[in-house]
Amino acid sequence: MSRRWCALSVLTLSLCLNSVVANTQAVSRESLAHAEVLRERAMAGSHALSIVTSLTTEVGPRLAGSEAEARARAWALNTLTQRGFANVRNEPFEMEAWQRHGEGGEILSPYPQTLAVTALGGSVPTEQGGLRAEVALFETLQDLQSAPEGSLSGRIAYVGHAMQRTQDGSSYGYFNKARTAGPSIAASKGAVGYLIRSVGTDSHRFPHTGSLRYEEDIPKIPALALSNPDADQIERIAAKGEVLEVRVWVDSSIVPAAESGNVVAEVVGWESPEEIVVIGAHLDSWDLGTGAIDDGAGVGITMAALELIKEAGLAPRRTIRLVLWGAEEVGLLGASAYRDRHAADLNQHVIGSESDFGGGRVWKVTAASQSEAGDALFAHIARCLAPIGIAPGRSDQPGGGPDMYPLIAAGVPSLRLHQDGRDYFDLHHTADDTVDKLDARSLDQNVAAFAVFAWLVADSDVSFRAESE
Amino acid sequence: MSRRWCALSVLTLSLCLNSVVANTQAVSRESLAHAEVLRERAMAGSHALSIVTSLTTEVGPRLAGSEAEARARAWALNTLTQRGFANVRNEPFEMEAWQRHGEGGEILSPYPQTLAVTALGGSVPTEQGGLRAEVALFETLQDLQSAPEGSLSGRIAYVGHAMQRTQDGSSYGYFNKARTAGPSIAASKGAVGYLIRSVGTDSHRFPHTGSLRYEEDIPKIPALALSNPDADQIERIAAKGEVLEVRVWVDSSIVPAAESGNVVAEVVGWESPEEIVVIGAHLDSWDLGTGAIDDGAGVGITMAALELIKEAGLAPRRTIRLVLWGAEEVGLLGASAYRDRHAADLNQHVIGSESDFGGGRVWKVTAASQSEAGDALFAHIARCLAPIGIAPGRSDQPGGGPDMYPLIAAGVPSLRLHQDGRDYFDLHHTADDTVDKLDARSLDQNVAAFAVFAWLVADSDVSFRAESE
Repeated sequence: MSRRWCALSVLTLSLCLNSVVANTQAVSRESLAHAEVLRERAMAGSHALSIVTSLTTEVGPRLAGSEAEARARAWALNTLTQRGFANVRNEPFEMEAWQRHGEGGEILSPYPQTLAVTALGGSVPTEQGGLRAEVALFETLQDLQSAPEGSLSGRIAYVGHAMQRTQDGSSYGYFNKARTAGPSIAASKGAVGYLIRSVGTDSHRFPHTGSLRYEEDIPKIPALALSNPDADQIERIAAKGEVLEVRVWVDSSIVPAAESGNVVAEVVGWESPEEIVVIGAHLDSWDLGTGAIDDGAGVGITMAALELIKEAGLAPRRTIRLVLWGAEEVGLLGASAYRDRHAADLNQHVIGSESDFGGGRVWKVTAASQSEAGDALFAHIARCLAPIGIAPGRSDQPGGGPDMYPLIAAGVPSLRLHQDGRDYFDLHHTADDTVDKLDARSLDQNVAAFAVFAWLVADSDVSFRAESE
Repeated sequence: MSRRWCALSVLTLSLCLNSVVANTQAVSRESLAHAEVLRERAMAGSHALSIVTSLTTEVGPRLAGSEAEARARAWALNTLTQRGFANVRNEPFEMEAWQRHGEGGEILSPYPQTLAVTALGGSVPTEQGGLRAEVALFETLQDLQSAPEGSLSGRIAYVGHAMQRTQDGSSYGYFNKARTAGPSIAASKGAVGYLIRSVGTDSHRFPHTGSLRYEEDIPKIPALALSNPDADQIERIAAKGEVLEVRVWVDSSIVPAAESGNVVAEVVGWESPEEIVVIGAHLDSWDLGTGAIDDGAGVGITMAALELIKEAGLAPRRTIRLVLWGAEEVGLLGASAYRDRHAADLNQHVIGSESDFGGGRVWKVTAASQSEAGDALFAHIARCLAPIGIAPGRSDQPGGGPDMYPLIAAGVPSLRLHQDGRDYFDLHHTADDTVDKLDARSLDQNVAAFAVFAWLVADSDVSFRAESE
């Protein structure tokens, strides 16, 4: 989205929109009227929560590349076929799949007690009997980075900085480096194991898992997250100046060529079926919870949005494609596979947006339009979403959910429906990510936003790309 | 407490109290002034939270009869001695101690997935490999009781009724019968295992443990609690009419003659040291969490209250005795041992009160006084607690915490400081019972209430017993 109209007041914007409607072909009055009907129908009650409930009950946890993820694909294919969508299919790909078999931790001294820990996704196993070592505590990842080489020899490094609650989730990017990059940094200083305070905002004894990324040529060491209360506990003990000895254990393995897949369904455009508006979510989840907020919610929201358009009997000019990506959690593998499989068609992908930030309400919409027609269409979308509390925002950079990143890098425009994520990292990647945490009305508002956006773009001929393209 | 003055308005009560002060020997003006100083000092900040933090950090979980509970006694003896209390001692007793070694559960069909479960305290182990069986669901314990004999043969019985949140915790008494009495009722119908929805008010994946009571002459079957979200899950699956098969496993054992003990400390009365005002809490906890709300809070509150009196340099006429009971969770074993050891002195126990309902604020005080002098003294206590939000209430029956029951049954009067327990059963008996859940200001208000009550009774010669005694 350009900044051309951002400074306008709501009143001026409204006048401007009327002139846009009169003066451009961005969107017809009939199409706008349909968008308003879709919004009202969604707000009156969608199927989003029942879809998430079905997925999280009938499949439950669905780790990337596992047999459970395969059951999730079967569930999706069955559900999408039953709902009468077009071109329902699985687009399989192969991956290296990490499996968790067991884990645990305890303080051995000075005060013996059990610790609530979980292995980070991808962690190598410990040796039989676990890893006993003294813990070296660092307040921040930067402090760990500053430790002299070899200074952690034989010890377990711990990084303790705590993620704080934000509406836009923006602090996650900073703090999760302790999880992703920390293990290899610790190992490069000689550490034999790695512990972090969970990247999460709750104070419950749920450790938060999530992927780590080992660097090449650095020893791979077992890495685990402590729940926030357990992190507090070891910091309190260390603050007394006592030597802290712990035992941790991880049993894990790798399946070298496991199957995953992206599940696709469509409402086919009547005029330009080859032009694609992508909406979607990821089908895999971490294995600790049942993946209701991450990302059952997104599955429910986007599937219900597509269903709403179909059930309203509306036929858009372009195709709306729902993609339920596989293996997002372990490195956007499904999104990369989708990009590769559809490389020849990516220039026909008009715009995309993923729902992958839980079940909180949408409060802002942004798009990285590079055309005047795109700006005009975005203004219509924004006008139609304002009555349900969504304000247009500035976007200096593209976005639209993690599975959009490979597509964005390949030049596909994106739109982002920003959800309120203040509570998202309370549950994210924990055993407590279950369907009871979702609110139906809040999901319905998300469905309204996706239905309005997808419909208005698909029922237009507007390009968001730079006109020189 | 009699009902004589209960209907009086606050204004009338206040006038009445003034005349009581003038007309009776219940309490001196000086003693009342000291009580107000104690109250204000407590409200300005007590050591309660630092005591709980020390106990839950330096000992952590402390299951009745375990080596960890012995470390808790050592902590208590050391802490009480360091604080300079009189007659600090352990009063040991022997018990049969249950130990938890491992547990788990999973749905085998129709939708395979892990269940968050915990063995109930006292559960027999399953055979190696666990117990596989179909689940028979009952909405209530009454429905289970109504099941025909033999009708559950080879199956696991499940009772699903959900405890609701109350301020006074009163629904616990009803719902925890599913936990305590349920296993033997299920076994009497032929069940080979028993599951309940946790007796708890949260919606997190923390199962709540707690004691069961096997009946004689009925087979002992393994018994576990599901977390509330997991209970929802199996009820959703059962509602589809599917046959639900699960596997559960428990590894547990019994130590026949384990040691436990009650830790005692005193501020000795200058006039009638043999007359005892008892305050206290229980030192043991369940093994899943660190026992901060159950009952580290009570340990912190009552120890801080006694310390406040001592630190103020106040010498009461009677002895104030702090008792930190052992093995409360597994059947009030410490309280029973205390009653037996002190049988000859119980008639010298003026009154008692235990703090064992978490860290919420006190909102009501009641006492089962049977004397006019007791009523008058109670009115003084109530007047002194009113400024910190505590109202006197009616008491049709005695109370004052579970460890008071054996003493009450032996004729010891009791006073109850009723805490707000709306959140107590969110954490009760779970892994999430940790010190981060406690609020210092709220603990301080409890300390004020205990200090005022214990001081005013100990600095009087009033009996709460019926005058004929």
